Amino acid sequence: MTIVNEKLAWRYATKKFDPTKSVPTDKLEVIIEAVRLAPTSSGLQPFELFVISNPEIRAKIREVAWDQAQITDCSHLLVFAAWDDITEDRVHMMFDLTNDVRGFKNEGWESYRQQLLGIVADRGTEANYQAAARQAYIGLGAALIAAAFEEVDATPMEGFDPSAVDKILDLKSKNLRSVVMLPIGYRAAEGDWLVNLKKVRRSRENFVTEIK
Amino acid sequence: MTIVNEKLAWRYATKKFDPTKSVPTDKLEVIIEAVRLAPTSSGLQPFELFVISNPEIRAKIREVAWDQAQITDCSHLLVFAAWDDITEDRVHMMFDLTNDVRGFKNEGWESYRQQLLGIVADRGTEANYQAAARQAYIGLGAALIAAAFEEVDATPMEGFDPSAVDKILDLKSKNLRSVVMLPIGYRAAEGDWLVNLKKVRRSRENFVTEIK
Repeated sequence: MTIVNEKLAWRYATKKFDPTKSVPTDKLEVIIEAVRLAPTSSGLQPFELFVISNPEIRAKIREVAWDQAQITDCSHLLVFAAWDDITEDRVHMMFDLTNDVRGFKNEGWESYRQQLLGIVADRGTEANYQAAARQAYIGLGAALIAAAFEEVDATPMEGFDPSAVDKILDLKSKNLRSVVMLPIGYRAAEGDWLVNLKKVRRSRENFVTEIK
Repeated sequence: MTIVNEKLAWRYATKKFDPTKSVPTDKLEVIIEAVRLAPTSSGLQPFELFVISNPEIRAKIREVAWDQAQITDCSHLLVFAAWDDITEDRVHMMFDLTNDVRGFKNEGWESYRQQLLGIVADRGTEANYQAAARQAYIGLGAALIAAAFEEVDATPMEGFDPSAVDKILDLKSKNLRSVVMLPIGYRAAEGDWLVNLKKVRRSRENFVTEIK
């Protein structure tokens, strides 16, 4: 087993965090940076990351998230919020940024810009949002793995009312929608029913098909 | 910068693979295992992984994927195929597997099983498929990072006709739908227009909001 898989085997969906332990800034920044560096379709990065340490905001979110204690006990709550649509402006923002960073315009890239503008216009708001939400999960995967490398515990969490969280974080005004959360911090192993249970995954033969 | 972020910075969406170079079995297995170990919502693992080296099948897929050469030039084509619905049977399969692996039944877990059965029944086929598809992207993120650690190049790819790929791989009969592909292999740097260009990401301040 190599290091990435060792870290994936080490991590688990932490059920009880130690509320007295805080993730140090340098480790937090490593996790944030992994999300920022994660690849996305056409490089659009069609989501944003909210990093919440504020206790009042977290208490409000806990109320609309099945009262899960990890939300208030963790060190930082990460909320992944996807673009509610992939608009023309947003496509231009990323293509223009690409030209700025690379310092030149390229015919192939500009023709791809036009093609992508056509695709997102045809696809419509809801399908664009769904496509954006999927990209956020690549970032979630990167955050989980980066956290495990920093020996920081994390709990991917979909059990919340997205529209209620959107209201708490005022996401509508930013044209964003919450899709998934990730409390990070340090396990309180003595109070965690899951920590010592075996990880369950489908066997390779029930999960993988090779076509040779 | 720590190791995960170094690897994320190293990787790029490879545009030209060297068709003469094959990913060794041990490295391929590390990448597959990362996907298998990746966490998913409620532990359902609502997708499967197809690992395709067969040249005829890859040629057919290339025809319905904008003729992208990576599909046939890469060493192995990974196709992530999500459950087309989260059915009662599939929920039972994972909850029963969990009981088998852990060797006991647990009241809390059984009551969560009933709750989840209610949720997926209420939500309906299309929303269940969308939820399943998102989970596949966590696996994609894990595969990308595991590949980078093995110094294997990879190209996340959504540019294909999913229903055509479903037909080629006979996914409908397995109640699966293709959602994203990942050719893996070794870059042919001399023919790759992207290899030397700067990676473009939104700045931290345009991507991250801290609520303290």
